[in-house]
Amino acid sequence: MPASASPDTSQRRLRAGIVGGGRGAFIGSVHRLAAELDGQAQVIAGAMSSDPAVARESAAAWFLERSYSSYAEMARAESGHAAGIDFVIVATPNHLHCPVAREFLAQGIHVVCDKPLAASLAEGEELARLVDGGAALFALTHNYTGYPMVREARALVRSGRLGELRRVMVEYAQDWLMEPLERAGNKQAAWRTDPARAGPGGSVGDIGTHAANLLEFVTGRRIEAVCADLTAFVGGRALDDDASMLIRLEGGAKGTLSCSQIACGEENELSLRVYGSQAALEWHQQEPNTLILKPAGRPWELLRSGHAYLGADARAACRTPPGHPEGYLEAFANIYRGFIADVRRVRAGQAPLRDYPGVAEGVRGLRFVAQAVASSRAGSVWMRL
Amino acid sequence: MPASASPDTSQRRLRAGIVGGGRGAFIGSVHRLAAELDGQAQVIAGAMSSDPAVARESAAAWFLERSYSSYAEMARAESGHAAGIDFVIVATPNHLHCPVAREFLAQGIHVVCDKPLAASLAEGEELARLVDGGAALFALTHNYTGYPMVREARALVRSGRLGELRRVMVEYAQDWLMEPLERAGNKQAAWRTDPARAGPGGSVGDIGTHAANLLEFVTGRRIEAVCADLTAFVGGRALDDDASMLIRLEGGAKGTLSCSQIACGEENELSLRVYGSQAALEWHQQEPNTLILKPAGRPWELLRSGHAYLGADARAACRTPPGHPEGYLEAFANIYRGFIADVRRVRAGQAPLRDYPGVAEGVRGLRFVAQAVASSRAGSVWMRL
Amino acid sequence: MPASASPDTSQRRLRAGIVGGGRGAFIGSVHRLAAELDGQAQVIAGAMSSDPAVARESAAAWFLERSYSSYAEMARAESGHAAGIDFVIVATPNHLHCPVAREFLAQGIHVVCDKPLAASLAEGEELARLVDGGAALFALTHNYTGYPMVREARALVRSGRLGELRRVMVEYAQDWLMEPLERAGNKQAAWRTDPARAGPGGSVGDIGTHAANLLEFVTGRRIEAVCADLTAFVGGRALDDDASMLIRLEGGAKGTLSCSQIACGEENELSLRVYGSQAALEWHQQEPNTLILKPAGRPWELLRSGHAYLGADARAACRTPPGHPEGYLEAFANIYRGFIADVRRVRAGQAPLRDYPGVAEGVRGLRFVAQAVASSRAGSVWMRL
Amino acid sequence: MPASASPDTSQRRLRAGIVGGGRGAFIGSVHRLAAELDGQAQVIAGAMSSDPAVARESAAAWFLERSYSSYAEMARAESGHAAGIDFVIVATPNHLHCPVAREFLAQGIHVVCDKPLAASLAEGEELARLVDGGAALFALTHNYTGYPMVREARALVRSGRLGELRRVMVEYAQDWLMEPLERAGNKQAAWRTDPARAGPGGSVGDIGTHAANLLEFVTGRRIEAVCADLTAFVGGRALDDDASMLIRLEGGAKGTLSCSQIACGEENELSLRVYGSQAALEWHQQEPNTLILKPAGRPWELLRSGHAYLGADARAACRTPPGHPEGYLEAFANIYRGFIADVRRVRAGQAPLRDYPGVAEGVRGLRFVAQAVASSRAGSVWMRL
Repeated sequence: MPASASPDTSQRRLRAGIVGGGRGAFIGSVHRLAAELDGQAQVIAGAMSSDPAVARESAAAWFLERSYSSYAEMARAESGHAAGIDFVIVATPNHLHCPVAREFLAQGIHVVCDKPLAASLAEGEELARLVDGGAALFALTHNYTGYPMVREARALVRSGRLGELRRVMVEYAQDWLMEPLERAGNKQAAWRTDPARAGPGGSVGDIGTHAANLLEFVTGRRIEAVCADLTAFVGGRALDDDASMLIRLEGGAKGTLSCSQIACGEENELSLRVYGSQAALEWHQQEPNTLILKPAGRPWELLRSGHAYLGADARAACRTPPGHPEGYLEAFANIYRGFIADVRRVRAGQAPLRDYPGVAEGVRGLRFVAQAVASSRAGSVWMRL
Repeated sequence: MPASASPDTSQRRLRAGIVGGGRGAFIGSVHRLAAELDGQAQVIAGAMSSDPAVARESAAAWFLERSYSSYAEMARAESGHAAGIDFVIVATPNHLHCPVAREFLAQGIHVVCDKPLAASLAEGEELARLVDGGAALFALTHNYTGYPMVREARALVRSGRLGELRRVMVEYAQDWLMEPLERAGNKQAAWRTDPARAGPGGSVGDIGTHAANLLEFVTGRRIEAVCADLTAFVGGRALDDDASMLIRLEGGAKGTLSCSQIACGEENELSLRVYGSQAALEWHQQEPNTLILKPAGRPWELLRSGHAYLGADARAACRTPPGHPEGYLEAFANIYRGFIADVRRVRAGQAPLRDYPGVAEGVRGLRFVAQAVASSRAGSVWMRL
Repeated sequence: MPASASPDTSQRRLRAGIVGGGRGAFIGSVHRLAAELDGQAQVIAGAMSSDPAVARESAAAWFLERSYSSYAEMARAESGHAAGIDFVIVATPNHLHCPVAREFLAQGIHVVCDKPLAASLAEGEELARLVDGGAALFALTHNYTGYPMVREARALVRSGRLGELRRVMVEYAQDWLMEPLERAGNKQAAWRTDPARAGPGGSVGDIGTHAANLLEFVTGRRIEAVCADLTAFVGGRALDDDASMLIRLEGGAKGTLSCSQIACGEENELSLRVYGSQAALEWHQQEPNTLILKPAGRPWELLRSGHAYLGADARAACRTPPGHPEGYLEAFANIYRGFIADVRRVRAGQAPLRDYPGVAEGVRGLRFVAQAVASSRAGSVWMRL
Repeated sequence: MPASASPDTSQRRLRAGIVGGGRGAFIGSVHRLAAELDGQAQVIAGAMSSDPAVARESAAAWFLERSYSSYAEMARAESGHAAGIDFVIVATPNHLHCPVAREFLAQGIHVVCDKPLAASLAEGEELARLVDGGAALFALTHNYTGYPMVREARALVRSGRLGELRRVMVEYAQDWLMEPLERAGNKQAAWRTDPARAGPGGSVGDIGTHAANLLEFVTGRRIEAVCADLTAFVGGRALDDDASMLIRLEGGAKGTLSCSQIACGEENELSLRVYGSQAALEWHQQEPNTLILKPAGRPWELLRSGHAYLGADARAACRTPPGHPEGYLEAFANIYRGFIADVRRVRAGQAPLRDYPGVAEGVRGLRFVAQAVASSRAGSVWMRL
C-alpha cells in the first residue's frame, strides 16, 4: 500500500519526491535506486526537469504518480496533498540546491540534498541556519560514508586501535574531464566547469569535498588548515580540474589531500590512509569491501564486509553475508536508510538519531572549497578552515 | 500506481509474489531487492513461511498487500484477483521448487525460481516438460551470469578473441559449512545437508551447479564428462561438502572444477579461468568489476565494468559509470531485468527474448549433480553428462 | 683467495664446477648466480657444452680457471687437482643427470643436480642407491622450496596452526610451449618435448614435479595417489603439455594438482593453497614475499618476508629487511646455502644437516611422473605412488 | 683468476674494495652482493670498520684478501699494489662519503658511493667538482633506478606514449623509525637521526632523495620547486621523520612528494604515478616486476619484467625470463653492471657510457634536501631548486 494516504508511516513505504534527475542525469537514477533499495520508500512525485517534455517523459519512465513542471508548484501541492510526499530529493546542479531546499523546508517537508550543499559558502550558511531553526530533517549525500568498511574504519579510530593519529593521505582521482567535454555538449561537464552553477571550486568542489568529508568522518578530526595548489590543466577551463594540498588536522595529524579529474586512466579512485602510532588503515572505494589494517610489528589484516568480527556500525550497514560484494548503490542507500529511519522516528514522535551527513558537514565542505581556492590564489599559503 | 489493476503493464510496475523467504532467510531478501531494483516491479503478495505467524510478520515487515498461509491458496487467489501478481518468486528449499512452481504455472503465472531447479533430476525433467509445454515464462536465478564482466567474458569467447579453447578452471569455494552448523540449529545448513530437502548433492548442488553454469555460460560449450571425487570432510554429514573434478567440454577443452564449503577463510570465491590458443580470461566473483584478459605475447589487460570499450551485453548490464562498484545485488537484478522485460513483452503480444537461465540450464545442473555423485561413488570414473 | 689450494675450507670460498649451462642455457646462469650469491663459493671449472667451441667460449665468459671438453675428463682431473672443485653442478638435459652425477660421485665429489633427478624412475632409483651408499653429498634443486615464505608455510603447518589438513590445491601454469617451438629450433623446447631426453613426462616432469614437491614440502605429507588427465594440446607433440589431476595425500587431505605449459598469458604461476580445519594458507611464486594466512572466522593476514614475526626458518632464508623484494635467484641460492654449509660441515668432520632436497625427493618426483602418466593412459584411474 | 695481477681486465673479474659495511651494517652486504652478482667483480679488500676487531672479523667473514684499519691507508696501499682494487665502494654513514671518496679519487681509483652524496650541499658540490675535474668514474647508488620496469617507465615517457605530463605523485613510506630506536642503541637509527652525521634532512635525506631521484629519472624532468611540510613525529628527534610536499616539475607537471619513516605498517613503499594527457604509469617498489600502463579510454595494461614486448633498456636489465621475480638485489646490481662495464671500457681506452647516477644526481639530491628543509622552516613556502 505504498501510495496510500495512511498517516501512520509505520505501515507503509514512505513517499518521496525528486527535483532534478531527469533523463540522462546519472545521479538522479542513483538517488531513486538508493532511496528505494530497502523497500522503505518509493519515489512517487517529481519535478524532474525545467523542460516540461523531459519532465513528463522522465516521470512516466519512472511510473511517478504526479509530475510537476516546477519545484515551487510541487512543494505547495505536495504539502497540501492527503497522500503527499514524506521527503524530497534534491538532485539538481549545485546552484539550485539552496533555492529548492528552501522551498520544501518552508513547507515542512524533509530534504535529502546532493552535495556540495550550495554554490557558495554564504548561501550554504543561510541554508544551515534555516535547517537548524526548523523541524524538518536534512541529509546531505556524502554517500561514501555509507560503505560498511568506512564505518568500520571510523569505529577502529574511535576505539583507539590506531593510537595517536599522525600521517593522513586522502585522494580522489578521476579522468572524465581530461578532455574539454564542456565544449562538446556534455551537460554534466558543462555545469560542473561553470562557476555560476558549480561555485568557486571545480574538482575541489565536486570531489575534493568528498575526500575531505571522508577523512573527517573516519578520523573524527576536522581539517584545520590547507595549503593548496589548484590547476586547470585543460586549456580554457575557468575552474580547477586538479588540486594538491598539504593539510593539517586538529590534534596534530597532517598529510596530503589530492583530487583530480584529469588523472588519466583513473575511474573513481577515492582512497584513504590513516597512520597512527599503533596501527594504520587503508581503504579504496573501488574495492570497497576490504579495509586494510596495518598493526605495528604484525602482519596486515584484510577486514571484509559482512563478517561477524566487524563492529556494530559496519555490520548494520551490510545487506549480504561475506563474499557477496556490496557496491556503490548499497553504500548510497545506507545514507537513505538512516534518513528514512529518522523520518519514521520523527513521525512516531521520537527524536531523530541523525546518523548521516547534514548541513554542518555541508558548510564545512563549502569552507574547505573557499579556503583551498584562496590558498592557491595566494600562492599556496596555509589557510585555516 | 504499482498496486493498480491496470491490465496495461507498460504503465505500471509489475506486481510480484514470493513463496518462501520469510524472516531469517537471506535469499528471500536478495530476491526482493533484485526484483525491485530497477523500479520495474514490486513484491506485493507472499506465502513467506509455513509458520503462519512468521508468514504474517514477514509480510508486514515488507508492507505486502496480501499475505497467504499456503502457496496453493496464493496461486488460486492471485490468479483470480483483478490486480493479481504478474509473476511469482520461488525462494524455498530445493525440494519445494517443483511443487510450488507447478502450482503457479498451472495458473498461467510466470515463475522465477531459485536454483537448483529441483531436488532430483527426474523432478526437474518433469518441470521442464511442463514449462516447455506451457505459455508461462520461467527464469532460474543462476545470478552470477548477471555480472557485466561475465557477459563481457562470454562476448569475448563468442567473438573468437581467445582462439581455440584449451584449458578451463572453475572453482567455487566457501567456508560456511566447515563446522557442523546443521547440528547447531542453523536452518540454512540443516536443509542444505539433508538429502531429503537438498537432493543428492551437497556442495555440488548448492554451489557446484553455479560453477558449472558459469563455465558453460562463458564458454558456450557444454560439460561433456566429469571424473569426480566428492568428500564430506565434516563428520556425520550425509552429503558432500567438498568436491574436485576433472572435466571435459564439448570441442576438446578440459580442466578442473572444484567446489568446497569447508575451504577455511574463503567467503564466496567463485572464479573462472579460460585459456585459449590466442588469449585467456580470468574472473573472480569477489572482485566482479574486473575481467583480466591475457593476450598471447602481450601485457595483461584489466577490463572494467562501465567502460565504453566493453561490448553491448556488458554495457547494457551496468547501471553506473566506471569506478562505481556494482555488486552482487545488481548482478542478481540483471536476471530479473531480462525476465521482467520478457513479461512486459509477452503482455504486449511480443515474443520473449529469454536472455536469462531457464529450465534447460536447470536440467543440465541436475544432470551435473547426478553424474558427479555417480562418478565419485564409482571411484572417480568418467561419467558423461 | 677463492682459487687457493687450502684444504681448510673455512678460510676460503668453495670451488665449484659445472657441467652443462653453456651459452644460451638459462638455467646454467641461474645456477652460477645462486651458487655464488652469498660469497661462499665460486664456479671455477666447467664442461659447459659438448660442442668444444661453445664450451671454451662459455668458460671464458665466466672467467673459469679450467675448461673441459667432457664431463668424464673433468671429474678425473678435478679429483686429482690440488685445488680441485669442492662440488659439481649438473645443469644438463634430464637424460644426462644420472651419468654425469655418477661420474662425479665415483670420484667422491659432492653434487648439486637440477631436477628431475633422471629421465626414468629406474635410473633415478639407481642413482639414489649410489648416493645413499656413498659419502658424497647430493642436492636436487627444487628451488621453490628456498623461498622464505614457503618455509614459513611449512613451519605453520608443522606447528599445527592449520589444524587437520583437508583441501589442497597446487598449480604450475606457464605458456611458453603454447606454440610448437620445438619445431622452430628452440633447444630448450626441443629436449623438453623429446621423450628420449626428457623422460616420460612433458609438463608433468618439467613443472608438475615442482608442484608436487612444493605441496609435499609444505604439508609434510606425501601424495598417496593420483587420478590424472594428461594432454598434448599442441599437435604433433609426443609428451603432455598440460595435466589436471585429482590427488590424495597421506592422512586424508585431497584436492587437485594442475600443470600446464600452454596456459596462455601465464608466466610462471606456481601457486599453492592448503586448507585446514583451523586456518588456510595461500602462496604465489610470482609474488613470493607474501604468504596469506586465512584463520577461521578472522581477517586474512598477509605475512611478508623479512619480518621479526616470522619463524626461524623463514627469517634465516631472508637476506634483506622487509620491503626489499627477494626473488627467484635468492630462493634458488637458499638451496645452495644449505648445501654449501653441509660441505663445510663435512670437511670439518661434522654430520651434514641435509636441509635441502636430495635423492629421496628426486625418486618421489620420478614416481609421481610415472604414475601420472600411467593413470592418464588408463583413462584417469587412481594410481598409488 | 679474480686475484690475479692481470692488467687486462677483460680476462678477469674486477677487484673491488669496500669502506664501511662491517658486521651488522645491512647496506654493506647489499653492496657486496650487488657488485658480485654478475660474476664480473669480487670484493677482495676492505676497511670495514673503525673498530679494528670488527674490521678484521668482517674481512675474514667475507674471505677478503686484505683488511685495513683505515680508509686512508687502504687508498694508499691499494693504489700501489700490483693487484690493487679496480674500484672502491663507499658504504659509510653520510658524513664520511665525501672524505672517503676524496681519498680514493686522489689515487685515481674509481668510486661507487651510497647516497646521499654528502652530508651538506657545499660538501657535495665540492665533491662534484673533484669528480668532474678528474678521470676516475663515480657512481651514486640510487639503486631503485636499476629496476627493469623503472627503466621501461622512463622509456615510455621518452617515447611520448604518455603525451604531455600533468600530475605526478611519488612517495616513499616506511615505519622503521616509528619508535625512538636511536635512543635504544640502534646504530642505523642513531646516525640517521643525528644532523652531524646525516646532514640537515632526516626522512627527506634518507628516502626523500630516492623518491625525488626516481621521479626525475622516469619523467626526465627536474623538480623545479617544492613547498614542504616536514615533521618529527617522534618526540626528541632533531630531524624530520616525515614530510609532505607540493612539487612542480619543469614543463608544467605538478603534484605531491611524500616520505615518511613513521608510516605504521609500511615496509618500503616507494611508489610512483605519472599522469599524462594520453596515458599514465604506476609502479610500486614492493611489487617491482609490474608496471601499470593506463591508456586513455582503454583497459589498464600490466607490463611485466622479462617480456619480449618491453623496450631495450628494460630487457637489458632483466636476468631471468618472465615469471621469475627479480628483486631488490638484482636492481641494485644493475647499477653496478653499468658501472663495471664503464670501468672495463675505460681500461680498454673507450669512453664511458655513464648509464648510472653520478655526482650530478647527488648534488640535485642535496639541493632538494636543503630546499625542502628551508621551505618547511619558512612555513611551507615555494622554494626553487
